[in-house]
Amino acid sequence: MASPALPEISKPKIVDGPGGYVLEDVPHLTDYIPDLPTYPNPLQDNPAYSVVKQYFVHVDDSVPQKVVVHKDDPKGIHFRRAGARQKVYFHSDDVHACIVTCGGLCPGLNTVVREIVCGLHHMYGVKKVLGIDGGYKGFYAKNTVYLNPKVVNDIHKRGGTILGTSRGGHDTSKIVDSIQDRGINQVYIIGGDGTQRGAALIFEEIRRRGLKVSVAGIPKTIDNDIPVIDKSFGFDTAVEEAQRAINAAHVESESFENCIGLVKLMGRYSGFIAMYATLASRDVDCCLIPESPFYLEGPGGLFEYIEKRLKEDGHMVIVIAEGAGQELLSQSIQSTTDASGNKLLQDVGLWISQSIKDHFSKQKMPINLKYIDPTYMIRAVPSNASDNVYCTLLAQSAVHGAMAGYTGFTSGLVNGRHTYIPFNRIIEKQNKVVITDRMWARLLSSTNQPSFLRPSTNLLSNENGSQKSSDKKVTH
Amino acid sequence: MASPALPEISKPKIVDGPGGYVLEDVPHLTDYIPDLPTYPNPLQDNPAYSVVKQYFVHVDDSVPQKVVVHKDDPKGIHFRRAGARQKVYFHSDDVHACIVTCGGLCPGLNTVVREIVCGLHHMYGVKKVLGIDGGYKGFYAKNTVYLNPKVVNDIHKRGGTILGTSRGGHDTSKIVDSIQDRGINQVYIIGGDGTQRGAALIFEEIRRRGLKVSVAGIPKTIDNDIPVIDKSFGFDTAVEEAQRAINAAHVESESFENCIGLVKLMGRYSGFIAMYATLASRDVDCCLIPESPFYLEGPGGLFEYIEKRLKEDGHMVIVIAEGAGQELLSQSIQSTTDASGNKLLQDVGLWISQSIKDHFSKQKMPINLKYIDPTYMIRAVPSNASDNVYCTLLAQSAVHGAMAGYTGFTSGLVNGRHTYIPFNRIIEKQNKVVITDRMWARLLSSTNQPSFLRPSTNLLSNENGSQKSSDKKVTH
Amino acid sequence: MASPALPEISKPKIVDGPGGYVLEDVPHLTDYIPDLPTYPNPLQDNPAYSVVKQYFVHVDDSVPQKVVVHKDDPKGIHFRRAGARQKVYFHSDDVHACIVTCGGLCPGLNTVVREIVCGLHHMYGVKKVLGIDGGYKGFYAKNTVYLNPKVVNDIHKRGGTILGTSRGGHDTSKIVDSIQDRGINQVYIIGGDGTQRGAALIFEEIRRRGLKVSVAGIPKTIDNDIPVIDKSFGFDTAVEEAQRAINAAHVESESFENCIGLVKLMGRYSGFIAMYATLASRDVDCCLIPESPFYLEGPGGLFEYIEKRLKEDGHMVIVIAEGAGQELLSQSIQSTTDASGNKLLQDVGLWISQSIKDHFSKQKMPINLKYIDPTYMIRAVPSNASDNVYCTLLAQSAVHGAMAGYTGFTSGLVNGRHTYIPFNRIIEKQNKVVITDRMWARLLSSTNQPSFLRPSTNLLSNENGSQKSSDKKVTH
Amino acid sequence: MASPALPEISKPKIVDGPGGYVLEDVPHLTDYIPDLPTYPNPLQDNPAYSVVKQYFVHVDDSVPQKVVVHKDDPKGIHFRRAGARQKVYFHSDDVHACIVTCGGLCPGLNTVVREIVCGLHHMYGVKKVLGIDGGYKGFYAKNTVYLNPKVVNDIHKRGGTILGTSRGGHDTSKIVDSIQDRGINQVYIIGGDGTQRGAALIFEEIRRRGLKVSVAGIPKTIDNDIPVIDKSFGFDTAVEEAQRAINAAHVESESFENCIGLVKLMGRYSGFIAMYATLASRDVDCCLIPESPFYLEGPGGLFEYIEKRLKEDGHMVIVIAEGAGQELLSQSIQSTTDASGNKLLQDVGLWISQSIKDHFSKQKMPINLKYIDPTYMIRAVPSNASDNVYCTLLAQSAVHGAMAGYTGFTSGLVNGRHTYIPFNRIIEKQNKVVITDRMWARLLSSTNQPSFLRPSTNLLSNENGSQKSSDKKVTH
Repeated sequence: MASPALPEISKPKIVDGPGGYVLEDVPHLTDYIPDLPTYPNPLQDNPAYSVVKQYFVHVDDSVPQKVVVHKDDPKGIHFRRAGARQKVYFHSDDVHACIVTCGGLCPGLNTVVREIVCGLHHMYGVKKVLGIDGGYKGFYAKNTVYLNPKVVNDIHKRGGTILGTSRGGHDTSKIVDSIQDRGINQVYIIGGDGTQRGAALIFEEIRRRGLKVSVAGIPKTIDNDIPVIDKSFGFDTAVEEAQRAINAAHVESESFENCIGLVKLMGRYSGFIAMYATLASRDVDCCLIPESPFYLEGPGGLFEYIEKRLKEDGHMVIVIAEGAGQELLSQSIQSTTDASGNKLLQDVGLWISQSIKDHFSKQKMPINLKYIDPTYMIRAVPSNASDNVYCTLLAQSAVHGAMAGYTGFTSGLVNGRHTYIPFNRIIEKQNKVVITDRMWARLLSSTNQPSFLRPSTNLLSNENGSQKSSDKKVTH
Repeated sequence: MASPALPEISKPKIVDGPGGYVLEDVPHLTDYIPDLPTYPNPLQDNPAYSVVKQYFVHVDDSVPQKVVVHKDDPKGIHFRRAGARQKVYFHSDDVHACIVTCGGLCPGLNTVVREIVCGLHHMYGVKKVLGIDGGYKGFYAKNTVYLNPKVVNDIHKRGGTILGTSRGGHDTSKIVDSIQDRGINQVYIIGGDGTQRGAALIFEEIRRRGLKVSVAGIPKTIDNDIPVIDKSFGFDTAVEEAQRAINAAHVESESFENCIGLVKLMGRYSGFIAMYATLASRDVDCCLIPESPFYLEGPGGLFEYIEKRLKEDGHMVIVIAEGAGQELLSQSIQSTTDASGNKLLQDVGLWISQSIKDHFSKQKMPINLKYIDPTYMIRAVPSNASDNVYCTLLAQSAVHGAMAGYTGFTSGLVNGRHTYIPFNRIIEKQNKVVITDRMWARLLSSTNQPSFLRPSTNLLSNENGSQKSSDKKVTH
Repeated sequence: MASPALPEISKPKIVDGPGGYVLEDVPHLTDYIPDLPTYPNPLQDNPAYSVVKQYFVHVDDSVPQKVVVHKDDPKGIHFRRAGARQKVYFHSDDVHACIVTCGGLCPGLNTVVREIVCGLHHMYGVKKVLGIDGGYKGFYAKNTVYLNPKVVNDIHKRGGTILGTSRGGHDTSKIVDSIQDRGINQVYIIGGDGTQRGAALIFEEIRRRGLKVSVAGIPKTIDNDIPVIDKSFGFDTAVEEAQRAINAAHVESESFENCIGLVKLMGRYSGFIAMYATLASRDVDCCLIPESPFYLEGPGGLFEYIEKRLKEDGHMVIVIAEGAGQELLSQSIQSTTDASGNKLLQDVGLWISQSIKDHFSKQKMPINLKYIDPTYMIRAVPSNASDNVYCTLLAQSAVHGAMAGYTGFTSGLVNGRHTYIPFNRIIEKQNKVVITDRMWARLLSSTNQPSFLRPSTNLLSNENGSQKSSDKKVTH
Repeated sequence: MASPALPEISKPKIVDGPGGYVLEDVPHLTDYIPDLPTYPNPLQDNPAYSVVKQYFVHVDDSVPQKVVVHKDDPKGIHFRRAGARQKVYFHSDDVHACIVTCGGLCPGLNTVVREIVCGLHHMYGVKKVLGIDGGYKGFYAKNTVYLNPKVVNDIHKRGGTILGTSRGGHDTSKIVDSIQDRGINQVYIIGGDGTQRGAALIFEEIRRRGLKVSVAGIPKTIDNDIPVIDKSFGFDTAVEEAQRAINAAHVESESFENCIGLVKLMGRYSGFIAMYATLASRDVDCCLIPESPFYLEGPGGLFEYIEKRLKEDGHMVIVIAEGAGQELLSQSIQSTTDASGNKLLQDVGLWISQSIKDHFSKQKMPINLKYIDPTYMIRAVPSNASDNVYCTLLAQSAVHGAMAGYTGFTSGLVNGRHTYIPFNRIIEKQNKVVITDRMWARLLSSTNQPSFLRPSTNLLSNENGSQKSSDKKVTH
């Protein structure tokens, strides 16, 4: 079936228009399978949708990536708008979909699963939806379960994922074998950047084999570190829940003398949760994130700032993202030779707790330090109302896209509109807090913490190329 | 001082550009006061902001109103981007600001108040910020209180407004007299569309008198009925809290035979809270909003649907916005002559409860109906983390705008970006759920309720002119 | 089977002992069926219990009703202590149990159901447990469902009752026919005083027919109006949830001028929820309960107090139990002739709201009144941790009692100990707040409200005979 | 003033009565200061209390310690009932009270502080109430603050203690010097067993010096490890909050393969929080507490049980109290020589996490382990409604006691009644879970965990002398 002339890797589909308009389009099954039949979208007969004249997305609808513009600016990059199309490339009875969740937990996973199942079922009359058990490796395991609206009816009220999840376990060719063997023709993959990278490989292999299989990604990252999109689902819920830990740290710190409440939050490479939780709470005196290097000793360092705060106020709250200060941590660990101890020290929260205690112990300044790691308590909550609606639309967008024959795309919110984004844009880099941008300045202003920039630090190199500023994240 | 040649009402400031670009700009003090001196923005010396090269907004930055575009579309309407300017029109020591909150409660009011105070204080060194007590009429009362960061430190953790609020009480000329007498030169007005209409009048009068006073509005409406902006602050929190009532209705209805759980939610003219709460909860069988007329009796009517659901499932949940079915209610009330009874009947929740009970009583079909009105419990909660961050940025945007000499503007989020919107655009009409649009279709699909459209109903008239579709609201 | 010589109504079993000791014992199957075989309690082989030497309750264990004693007091009334007995009167394989829930919702119903099922299953190896659908009338309907630990595993996390419930529907002889026809030999009845009265009738009929069927009651009343026992399950949860409404009323009232936040809470005949919620919240200025008559007009009346509070503080919070002021309400209704209006007025919350508005309208004193009725939102929440543990022990006590051959008893907590109480003691009167007692004095002191006692009121008549003071309720 | 003939340590006051009645009474100022004047209780003129005929506690009221009795039992030990007396030993204007909070945080601390202040003020007209800053050592520091009802009005809605707290810092003679110097004559001491031990020493020194100073203790221990009393304040709130962590562990464990959710809860010497949280949650597969020794390796050990559960269910939840397995931990630490590593290992949660990981890594069985330590998040929450009422009554009891001239007593709930307990009974031993008792059996039955009793273990020694069984704790 597959054309042998196809290049190994699909090329980006770029469409140009007048006034500097650029559309970064997503692949379509017809790109490599000619003459596919189409069907009228069954939504036309659905009572809920039939009165909605504007329901179907116009074929030319697109959404700009950049919305802060000057009057002379070119129109710039756009993405295809998500939504139902008038024609679909699958007959409902022929659809055999599967859903897989990969990576760590994130509030809203179950809502996305629920809404893919219900969307396929209620909107398109699709009955065969398979749940893959325990992440990518579930594709070549035997445990699978068929999902229907009744099975998934209440799962959005629970945290976690009913499908189970795991990290890694990705073997492109075995997975595509499994897809082919089972006769699956729509693959919904919910996961973070590693997972989406895997989804891209699956898409390429499917395309190489010439299979009529749509591959749709739904970006999941509690850290909000996926680029292009406005924010990831579950993020609002996570920030909300993080307030509890910060509040506890605040209460503890105020009740004891010279007391530091220290909260570790998620954020391996991006400090968004720490930054937003700090801004929302207003009880934090210092927020440390991976993007903003800091140092401990000497003038302008963390210890000096802590000492100042304790002397002035008698207490303080520090929030640290799990990926912050990794370079300090590595140095510290290299000097320690004990193997078993090291493992524990690799947790930045435990490490910095110990460092602070050691420092003030040397200074003979008695302090109290209360360390809170709420990570699993945050991840495991059910999504809040706002994330529930967001997950619903993400899932429905993915379903509409797959039914319309698009493939190799991620369903994503761009400037408040649901779009289809090509995989390459999602996986090319990570979304990070831009510390030369306004949101971080707001944070610094709110905490009054030092910038931890030594005189020699040159921020200019960071400054360019940040098409997406962290300021964007204020939209929710 | 004031130029007598000024027209009574300021004209919209429209700026055109190439490719169909239109900027709907906001007024500026220099529009009617020439030769105002400027000062460097004190943020330039603020350690938190000084490292942020991109901190100041470029004078040409603007944000498009419409982001679903075709490649040949003209660029269309834009708004001025909010944010700090390099030059300001007030010296910090000269600023005498005041803040007033008007209308009903909404989660986040205290956060907005807090952040105006803290923004003026920490960012611009402004010390004189007056709190007006109890809404507009507080301008001509004697109770006022000076606000500072210490006073407002913890207020974002409490519901309500520490300033007090009231409806009405607007007397433009007395208010401007009071502003002039007290020497106030920045007025921050937090309120809904009525309040913003008042703010527009205050601005016009100030302009007529030629006063150097900036008037900044911050739109507040728990109903989300203000046009142009993405959503109003407190809306997410309200939808979240509404879930509790829906959940209670669901539990009650499932525990009794033929039981209807009925929840009345806010929404005088717009059904957004009802719609989003329904979509988020997934436990609702029927959602009635002001924008979608319905009828009770006969085929396709509400009673028929209720009977069907009870016979199939034994229970159901109905959500009704307070403004739904007003035309039915008026008819019903006209036929009742008892004055004291009428007052109570004007509550749509009590009215529809009674109508349903009466109908099934006539039908000899025993039902249980459990009616919940959580209105005040929703309004009074503190804002959640997401709304807290949103309120912070709204408040800071307003402060930046006023300091930069803009006036007669509302601080508003447009496509995920903070902008300054001229008053006329905010007050010209109400934001409403577009029932021919996709979000409402999603709702119908989720509840399976009938469309309540009689064969003769013509939706085409609704369809046009809805520049802003309800679908937009998915951005949060 | 049944002995014709049995009296129609069983007599109380009273056992006397030295020092004034009295045991008010519960019936036993052997009271009317001689020579019943016994079996060793299977818990003796259960690994969880086998190490527990003190596990089995001594046959003589009893718990005094009165624990405030003087040194010369007689020992007084005691109840039989609940718990597992060394011998049981049912072989596990022969047990055919059923569970029914009756009356309104109350947090913890599902936990009690769960724990009866799990207790029978895990402790005694009983496999046949039938759920009666929708209250008493479910006995003669066909829908029943067999319950097992898997089915009930997560139900304690949900509000309501999975069995469904209803009021009334009690037909003793049809119910006992159904019990006999189905071969049920253990009946667990969860409900309020009306329900327990029904249970007593069922027990008498079973006894009259000479059936080997144990009837065990579990008292359920969110109002806490059941006598003898320390408190009813779900009460703590209800008081907790009531705080939300009071807090909302407090926030609303503080944000508007002359604002009254009015909260109606459950309590048809007993004001415990209102009293405890008031004491726990500390934001209430006036608490009105059925036990404490009040009047509106004139010196020392409610209107005078409201006016005083509004003039002093500008706002106030009133809590009213649904049964408060019924005599005022009836007078008011008698003077109204409009039938449709009356129905609505019978709600004390709506009635008093209107009365207050009318009064101050006549006085030309503008007020704001915000009325909150959180009843269904309180009833429908899942039970909190403390109530979960309490429900577990109530259920297990009932199971142990039925297995041990006791019947015609209610499982109840007396002075912190689980006991078996004869039905007659539970249904003879209602537990009420004693307004000449200390708890109510505490409340008056906390709210500063007037006592609403006209000079002529004589409290002495109330004073006697209240063996159980409301002060007792502080135990939780 | 002080009689030189007084013995160094006061002797227990034991009063005998007929039928084996024993009253363990508390000291009174008149024990060592003769001829103290008395005053009528000002509550007699308080409108809230004046109608309450039964308000004053009868001089002979007492409460039995044991309420499971046999008909021939002697009456046994009783405590004096708490409450207002008709005569008081302080004139309101002469009272100079102070309050101190010591030890770790516990929900409800602020409520107790609030209610001592409000109780003294509103009930007795006492105006001088000093807050001691930061625990015992605050007595000889200079920072103190006068408290009044306005200052403490909202503090019960916040976690922590507004007074600040600390551990240790007890120097009896300096503290009594400070009390004497400041002219304080009522000392309210809120803290755990160590603190109460300190309070006993302060009382003895005051008595030795013959000062007219009442010393009242309010027992505070989130672990519920104080003997005699039913339960400590804040315990219900702590168990409630612990559910969140257990629920998160449950969600995590169900979402990953071979996943163990591990939650560490408070409980240095007593496992009550762990036991009750386990019973309330029903999602726990293994609960480890200090009172029940366990072992890791071999048949019947923890590793074997974990392996079994993972193989059967794929996931499990373990709850461990912080004091569990200390003897295993010490052995493990002795074999490690690295000093810095040791510190971290002393945390039983981190230690057991590592032990489990190491074991299954050796077994080549891949597992996921998610460790949650919610300690500070539990301690820092505000008390729930039930604990708020409890704290109110504890505080008022202490105030009534001190005003009535009692001293050297702890205010405590015994069998649901508030009593005054002599210090020696509170500090003589710790309240512990009795693992041969029924509550622990219930737990074992609910988790199905092994008893971890090796064949040789002899429980008989534990069995005796446990006057107070853990079963008692079910009263709330």
